[in-house]
Amino acid sequence: MKKTTDFKILIFLLLIGIKGYSQELNREGKANNKPNVVIIYTDDLGYGDLSSYGNPTLHTPELDKMATQGMKLSQFYVAAPVCTPSRAALLTGAYPKRVGLEKGVLFPSSKTGLNPEEKTIAEILKEKDYATACIGKWHLGYQEKFLPINQGFDIFYGIPFSNDMSRKEQDIYGNKNYKWQLPLMSQKDTIELDPNQQYLTKRLTHKAVDFIKKNKSTPFFLYLAHPMPHIPLYASEKFQNTSVRGKYGDTVEEIDWSVGEVLKTLKKYDLERNTLVIFTSDNGPWKVFKTDGGSAGPLRGGKGTTWEGGTRVPCIAWWPGKIPSGSFQTKVITNMDLLPTIANLCGANLPKKDIDGVDVSSALFGEKQNEESKPFLYYSSRGELQGIRKGKYKLLIIEDDTFLFDLESDISEAYNISESLPEKIIELKKIMTELDANLNLNKREVGKI
Amino acid sequence: MKKTTDFKILIFLLLIGIKGYSQELNREGKANNKPNVVIIYTDDLGYGDLSSYGNPTLHTPELDKMATQGMKLSQFYVAAPVCTPSRAALLTGAYPKRVGLEKGVLFPSSKTGLNPEEKTIAEILKEKDYATACIGKWHLGYQEKFLPINQGFDIFYGIPFSNDMSRKEQDIYGNKNYKWQLPLMSQKDTIELDPNQQYLTKRLTHKAVDFIKKNKSTPFFLYLAHPMPHIPLYASEKFQNTSVRGKYGDTVEEIDWSVGEVLKTLKKYDLERNTLVIFTSDNGPWKVFKTDGGSAGPLRGGKGTTWEGGTRVPCIAWWPGKIPSGSFQTKVITNMDLLPTIANLCGANLPKKDIDGVDVSSALFGEKQNEESKPFLYYSSRGELQGIRKGKYKLLIIEDDTFLFDLESDISEAYNISESLPEKIIELKKIMTELDANLNLNKREVGKI
Repeated sequence: MKKTTDFKILIFLLLIGIKGYSQELNREGKANNKPNVVIIYTDDLGYGDLSSYGNPTLHTPELDKMATQGMKLSQFYVAAPVCTPSRAALLTGAYPKRVGLEKGVLFPSSKTGLNPEEKTIAEILKEKDYATACIGKWHLGYQEKFLPINQGFDIFYGIPFSNDMSRKEQDIYGNKNYKWQLPLMSQKDTIELDPNQQYLTKRLTHKAVDFIKKNKSTPFFLYLAHPMPHIPLYASEKFQNTSVRGKYGDTVEEIDWSVGEVLKTLKKYDLERNTLVIFTSDNGPWKVFKTDGGSAGPLRGGKGTTWEGGTRVPCIAWWPGKIPSGSFQTKVITNMDLLPTIANLCGANLPKKDIDGVDVSSALFGEKQNEESKPFLYYSSRGELQGIRKGKYKLLIIEDDTFLFDLESDISEAYNISESLPEKIIELKKIMTELDANLNLNKREVGKI
Repeated sequence: MKKTTDFKILIFLLLIGIKGYSQELNREGKANNKPNVVIIYTDDLGYGDLSSYGNPTLHTPELDKMATQGMKLSQFYVAAPVCTPSRAALLTGAYPKRVGLEKGVLFPSSKTGLNPEEKTIAEILKEKDYATACIGKWHLGYQEKFLPINQGFDIFYGIPFSNDMSRKEQDIYGNKNYKWQLPLMSQKDTIELDPNQQYLTKRLTHKAVDFIKKNKSTPFFLYLAHPMPHIPLYASEKFQNTSVRGKYGDTVEEIDWSVGEVLKTLKKYDLERNTLVIFTSDNGPWKVFKTDGGSAGPLRGGKGTTWEGGTRVPCIAWWPGKIPSGSFQTKVITNMDLLPTIANLCGANLPKKDIDGVDVSSALFGEKQNEESKPFLYYSSRGELQGIRKGKYKLLIIEDDTFLFDLESDISEAYNISESLPEKIIELKKIMTELDANLNLNKREVGKI
């Protein structure tokens, strides 16, 4: 009797041990090898639009929780203040100008797109046998050769351009001659025309959850690019008229729900210690639409401008066990840094052609940062060079006006100190011009049909 | 042998049981009865000056942690945009006008102060045998009869007015005729003249920690009113030149450290489940001093104004086990609500004279709020009525300009909707005028020497 009991206990302990060991392998083995990567890219969400970034009436509990479990980046930039070039920079790790996509957004009738010769994050991970999906808004070319499925993504499910690029929606703005309809696509096929946009966030979320579930045993890269909260704003019934912040709030709070679903799914399949999740936005808030647009918080300007509100966006990085929980990173980091960072973390090869981003994994892992970030160039929505940030200083030249700001102390670009630091202006202008000249020299061909 | 062992185990279990039970009593018994209260009141800290309220370069990890363990209030107001009236409202639960202290700040030469006939939070708690301390800046009357020790506080240790009210400091601003020196006081005595201000935050923190330690077995009320980050800015060596945000950042980050020390002390003595801690500011940032002043984040205006940045301030409420962790409260709550809330929580009696605050404990405890908050009146720094907030609307009348804002959607007071809602203006104007007229009728005497 005694011996049987002991034997049972032994078996029990062994089983616990085996379970623990296999979990260890599953978690740590994969973590040190090929982590999954999820990038959630929102559209026109401003720096000040999350409660964790100081919004007083928009409540984003899932994103706030993600920030307390991960890292809140406070000086994260996208390389352009509008949609297409920002996305080109994200996926290629290069300034939009380098890949020929700096001149504003693409339209449904555009004959150009991201050159399939460029290497995207999806392509460098594909080489390492990642499953890859682009779910949501693409906006890097509508012609078949430019579509995600020809840029390293196994799966494309979503819309090829902005959600206002539809006759139905443009009519709202008084443009009666707009001839396009918004296609919902699966791979290269249009599966619906002018889908009911109130269900977009929900449908894309379900697709994303499904993709994670299907690939829980393979390394994967999920690029979930929500078309919202770009105008026209839409939320599903559950979120309509629920936010204190109005229609814009409803829309963002549904995205917050969506992020919660993604993280919940990762936890459900025990993938959270093996997945890097980045949440951010393609550019600042579309302020011309007043309260239907978002907020840049304390930052000046918004979408389309080279003030901070144009290109500095919220960014939360999450990877339990790797990224320190509740951490706060003030280092200047850009969306171009994601490709080389991901390449390093996933053991993928960098593109052979020049890129502009650098590996920032040590900053994400909370290691002390002594080195100054690479200078960051500000380009207008049409691709004109307008400024540079180097260290704490920002030089901005708009037409005949010269501004110099100390962005660390003067967070709202309120105090132009150009007159007191003429030598700093000369120094920054030189660096800015040289960097841009180098980009011009090494500019590659945009994709053409 | 066997019996001895069993007996020893029995004794051991009993001891654990007793310890557990006594802790239970200590924690819960006191919690349901006479919780401790700590109010940390900073000076000129703006809505946007904490990393948890969206500041990109100021890092306040202790306050951020306090917020994730407690509640972040996003629409918390003080009753005046300057120091003296704001503090009068905090301690009496009444509009400054009601207690005769609405006309700006007191100076060292002022012959008036908070009327000792008024009941402060300290006095109503004193009636319930609380130990009470005012550590830091008072600014409600420099004459002996107005000092904290005559307003319900057992202990006063700090400065009687602002840290710039000293010949030494005023010289910085070019005022050569200013004749005062800043006294550091203990009870009613000056113990130092012009203390080295770089040690103020540290010294006051040590006094506060000491007070908690001495009173760990008695219910206590600690009012820790930091004189910083009011200009002139000072931080101790450890914090000098450490913040990315510059001198203002150094100063605020030392206050952040101070808050951490207070919370750590409460935990050390097992008082955290029995103590309500409120962290807030007396008014918005002093923007005329540019980067030496703080930031109102997305809010318009700052100290001295009736824009939101003048009176809406950060506020974090913390009480583990009572206030839901990581919660976010958008309800309009004011510093006048603290007295009746504390009275309710501590079983103290409300003052017999009229007050303006209401008990908001259910909001702090995260219960669903259906009722609209009491309308809130905006008074200028000199006590002139300029506006009202009711529900989501704010009416502001400055000289001949009329503004109407929807503060829930238009968080930065950017879009004046007065022309589209004339009937709303009439309605709000009527309520505002009536409430103010009632205050004028019931105005009590200011304290005079």
